[in-house]
Amino acid sequence: MVRALGHSEHCSLNEALKILLDEFASVPFKRQRMRARDALGFTLADDVYSMRNVPHYSASAVDGYAVQSCATAGASPATPVTLGPDEFSWVNTGMPVGCHDSVVMVEDTSFDPTASDDHTEACQLRVFRSLTQGENVRAVGEDVMNGQLIASRGEPVTCALISLMLCAGVGEVSVRAKPRTLFIPTGDEIVSGDEWLSGKSIPAGLVADSNSLYAGSVFKSWGYSLDVSPIMPDDPDVIKDAVLSAARGYDLVLVSAGSAKGKRDHSADILSGLGRMLFRYVRMKPGRPAMAANVGGTPVIVSPGFPMSCAVTLWSLVYPILKLLSGEAMPRDCISEAIDSKETLAASFMTQHSSPQGIAEWLRVKCASVGGKMLCWPLTAGASVLWALAEADGIVMLSEETLECPKGTGVSVRLTRRVDFSKRILFQGSDDPAVGLLAPIMRDLGCDFAIRAVGSMGGLAALGREEAHLAAAHLLDASDGTYNTSYIAQFAAGRNWRRMLIFRREQGIITAPGNPKDIRGFADLASGEVMFENRQPGAGTRVLLDYMLRDNGLSAADVLGYDRISITHLEAANKVASGVADATLGIASAAAALGLHFIPIATEPYELVFSEGFFNHPASGALIKAIESGEWREAVVRMGGYELPQAGGA
Amino acid sequence: MVRALGHSEHCSLNEALKILLDEFASVPFKRQRMRARDALGFTLADDVYSMRNVPHYSASAVDGYAVQSCATAGASPATPVTLGPDEFSWVNTGMPVGCHDSVVMVEDTSFDPTASDDHTEACQLRVFRSLTQGENVRAVGEDVMNGQLIASRGEPVTCALISLMLCAGVGEVSVRAKPRTLFIPTGDEIVSGDEWLSGKSIPAGLVADSNSLYAGSVFKSWGYSLDVSPIMPDDPDVIKDAVLSAARGYDLVLVSAGSAKGKRDHSADILSGLGRMLFRYVRMKPGRPAMAANVGGTPVIVSPGFPMSCAVTLWSLVYPILKLLSGEAMPRDCISEAIDSKETLAASFMTQHSSPQGIAEWLRVKCASVGGKMLCWPLTAGASVLWALAEADGIVMLSEETLECPKGTGVSVRLTRRVDFSKRILFQGSDDPAVGLLAPIMRDLGCDFAIRAVGSMGGLAALGREEAHLAAAHLLDASDGTYNTSYIAQFAAGRNWRRMLIFRREQGIITAPGNPKDIRGFADLASGEVMFENRQPGAGTRVLLDYMLRDNGLSAADVLGYDRISITHLEAANKVASGVADATLGIASAAAALGLHFIPIATEPYELVFSEGFFNHPASGALIKAIESGEWREAVVRMGGYELPQAGGA
Repeated sequence: MVRALGHSEHCSLNEALKILLDEFASVPFKRQRMRARDALGFTLADDVYSMRNVPHYSASAVDGYAVQSCATAGASPATPVTLGPDEFSWVNTGMPVGCHDSVVMVEDTSFDPTASDDHTEACQLRVFRSLTQGENVRAVGEDVMNGQLIASRGEPVTCALISLMLCAGVGEVSVRAKPRTLFIPTGDEIVSGDEWLSGKSIPAGLVADSNSLYAGSVFKSWGYSLDVSPIMPDDPDVIKDAVLSAARGYDLVLVSAGSAKGKRDHSADILSGLGRMLFRYVRMKPGRPAMAANVGGTPVIVSPGFPMSCAVTLWSLVYPILKLLSGEAMPRDCISEAIDSKETLAASFMTQHSSPQGIAEWLRVKCASVGGKMLCWPLTAGASVLWALAEADGIVMLSEETLECPKGTGVSVRLTRRVDFSKRILFQGSDDPAVGLLAPIMRDLGCDFAIRAVGSMGGLAALGREEAHLAAAHLLDASDGTYNTSYIAQFAAGRNWRRMLIFRREQGIITAPGNPKDIRGFADLASGEVMFENRQPGAGTRVLLDYMLRDNGLSAADVLGYDRISITHLEAANKVASGVADATLGIASAAAALGLHFIPIATEPYELVFSEGFFNHPASGALIKAIESGEWREAVVRMGGYELPQAGGA
Repeated sequence: MVRALGHSEHCSLNEALKILLDEFASVPFKRQRMRARDALGFTLADDVYSMRNVPHYSASAVDGYAVQSCATAGASPATPVTLGPDEFSWVNTGMPVGCHDSVVMVEDTSFDPTASDDHTEACQLRVFRSLTQGENVRAVGEDVMNGQLIASRGEPVTCALISLMLCAGVGEVSVRAKPRTLFIPTGDEIVSGDEWLSGKSIPAGLVADSNSLYAGSVFKSWGYSLDVSPIMPDDPDVIKDAVLSAARGYDLVLVSAGSAKGKRDHSADILSGLGRMLFRYVRMKPGRPAMAANVGGTPVIVSPGFPMSCAVTLWSLVYPILKLLSGEAMPRDCISEAIDSKETLAASFMTQHSSPQGIAEWLRVKCASVGGKMLCWPLTAGASVLWALAEADGIVMLSEETLECPKGTGVSVRLTRRVDFSKRILFQGSDDPAVGLLAPIMRDLGCDFAIRAVGSMGGLAALGREEAHLAAAHLLDASDGTYNTSYIAQFAAGRNWRRMLIFRREQGIITAPGNPKDIRGFADLASGEVMFENRQPGAGTRVLLDYMLRDNGLSAADVLGYDRISITHLEAANKVASGVADATLGIASAAAALGLHFIPIATEPYELVFSEGFFNHPASGALIKAIESGEWREAVVRMGGYELPQAGGA
């Protein structure tokens, strides 16, 4: 047993990668013999030589007549040469030319008009072109020759090479074997996918084993296979045995720490007990607790348990070591390949972003092209959030040197999704679940709809800054009881914005089912017994709350939880549903979606507000179509709490 | 039976594609229900909604102590707040926070120094930071909420979405089924791959069924599967039955015409008999005879039989229709995706190229960066040549409008191979099979070696024009019997080129085994009975021949076949081996490789000639290492007919 004598801690990603690749650079490739036809994507272990001439006979390259070239000397359209029945023979493309030395194309011949024109060999052939020896003949070995080197060791086997090998008589090849990899999920709190989906009730504190599934999918997309071990409990002895036996039976071992570790983090002790620790802690976010060791010559990489941390460890450390172990050429940009990014996009931050000092940061971003500028914004930074990875258009990696990124900072986005940005509409504004339902319909129409819930005022402000194609608002002007008009005028600042009422919706107080605290109106929110969940400043619903409080002679200070903020109706309602809050103000459809109690307060107009150039946007027609579609209208009605304008009257 | 009423002939590729896609645009997607975890790469048929809250409990986002935020009011490093044993509880990342409303990170706490520091709940906790309600707590549904739209129909299923669906309780999804495709190889001359590789002798006129294999590999690389039918004979009735039954059982049918068709081309008649012809003849080269039809609602595409013609039909017509039928988003650049090109390179033609009028042309090209310029040159244009596709770095598509492309014409290369051009050496010069053997060794050293056999003079001229990093020559100066010196001086024109003798090699007359025409010297080449195979002008071997003829009092006119040209030693020797020629002049190793008779004539020095800046090239060291390597020296000795300088003396 080798004790750790020293390893790098808190190294940069590049340092960690170098340590890892240097450590295993001299591990010899394993070899595998296989049918050439099955070798697509493998890397050749040996040089490949042709085992035959292709073609193996002199073949005609055209449809025509095999002739002796010398017999056609001087032939031209004006001075054709006539050949007798023994001097030519019909030959299809690819057929042997026989004893002749060239082939005249059928277009350069005709038959003696006195003879029949059925191209039989009983006729006289007139040739209008003088041929050189070998003309239109594919010589023996023209494609490849017996003994010719047709591919070198280290080259990947391509579709074309597979065909070429067949023709060249190469039925089997030696390739570099792909490393056998085992993924070991650990953690008392991890529940297998099958159990998670079984419909059984899952106690608090348990999470699904999504990392094994993610790793398996990613390996599959990379063209590798991955074995997954049963989930190991947080027991150092059990994990130790599992890692040791895996290191003996596999070429690469991945250990996924449970997402909840803390006092139960044994990985470093286990690895330094079993082999030689290479590095621990990588200066990146997420993924910082990643570590690697050499256990008896086998690389063992531990990835932190949060889904995004696991993902970045796979992309940045596992993919390169896989390439190394399988003897494949190292890509110039491993990360782009690992995330299957085919394109890099220059974009500028739409929002300010602070990146931690001395730490490289992975951001999941979304992008949109507005007013000729490509904008991007990070989705949540939480390493636990899977949605953001599924939703992102791409990945931005901010270097260790990056600190404050003011709005407008230029970044390079590795796109992971195919987006036609000319057809993407960026919506910023008031949240409503009904708006989200437009997205699939837009997609059917070949367009795309990106939504940022920033509240009614946030949306109008974004429209004002040309950071959105459209906004949505339901802002009550307390001075006159009108909606939106005064706010739009203020943010438009003279620009010709258009507006469209897409529905009226019911707002009300949302409580737990059965309304256990017997809330009847705003006065009850000030009882001191009710924990309220509020919305962010600028949200139309918060404006409504403030108006209603004032109308009831109350102030913010009277409401317990006034400072607690949710960003969307569903989020706020969910706080009530999960018992974190007793009440919130929100729309009927959010209450209905979660089976909550709803006390109607007001019906308000929800209007889309379009930027000046909106109707020139290639996707504007699709948006209007989606709003007018039966599918959307019916879905909105089903949600409850909406009044739609007459169809076609929008 | 619907007779063709009219279809497009000789349309452009874009027209053909539009006809094809329009024809089948309204074919409804087939749907398939599958486990979400197996759906990677499929396209969603339905919108996907979360079936649970993720997380389903309030979870700690950090390792620390769950506390009531109000109890920490005013806490700071200078003014810590002390909490009693009942006021906090340890919580690992991801674990439920229980009845508390926030979590203080372990770093922001310490234990009362008078108590033990084992973090047990018997101690007093000092908190150095004031918390807000909900701080470091992942709320219920923070990732996704029950009922939330997590992906829209039409979106591809990614690795991240698969994980997210698991967490969200989505075990099954409906996806758009991938089209079932049948490939029907036809042609009396086609031999199945298994038979081709069986070792049986294959008569002249037969070719391997490489197209089925290529199509299968390409489909696999695209993520589709392909069924292949048995090879059909050139019998219209048999093919007709096969196509009709395929059109009934499959979503897409591909017919590969045999490479030899001519008088046996029935496809158009068959298709117009079975359904509606859509187009015939596409204005592209190769691939011109491609055609498509609608047979009972199923697209049937016929690809011409030559391997490259089949390939371009797959890339340009089949890939887009597959995307359409499977309801996947149409890529912006279908061709790049179809050929798996991740990068487009701007390069300029190193040679003049004539492209046919009104016809788009597919070129397989190789590239090299010399003197700061990215050069490219087409490999052979023959549609029958598979080697060129396997060897190419990428594909250039010349538009219909392109006619004459002078040297230097700028083109866009869709790279299909990963090349580090900074490490590629371009060799142009005298052909020798021994030079080719350097390539695999260079590749082992992380470098790359591109070879163009252009003859000794061609190489020196290329070096003079800065179109090569090195050349090789064995040019005899008839005036003084020296080799290379005078030629190098002429082409270098004052530049400081370096030269290196890498071996001496034996030249001689090569004849069929047993020397059936009893050739003993150059006089016998002038007998009128011997068909000679010559090399191209500028080849050192031709220079040697001319010298020898003169020395023997003979002239070119005395030698039958003096104008017949092969480009390499192996090609010339192969002409002898296959009986097309009786004799050639060439090196001993070429004769030995093909088992031919060899009559020694001269031993000549073969020298590499390096451009002025060669030794600054990042791959120059690797080339020298390869030349000095035991592997190469031994391989050269094994070939026979070479004398190597002392090791290390090169």
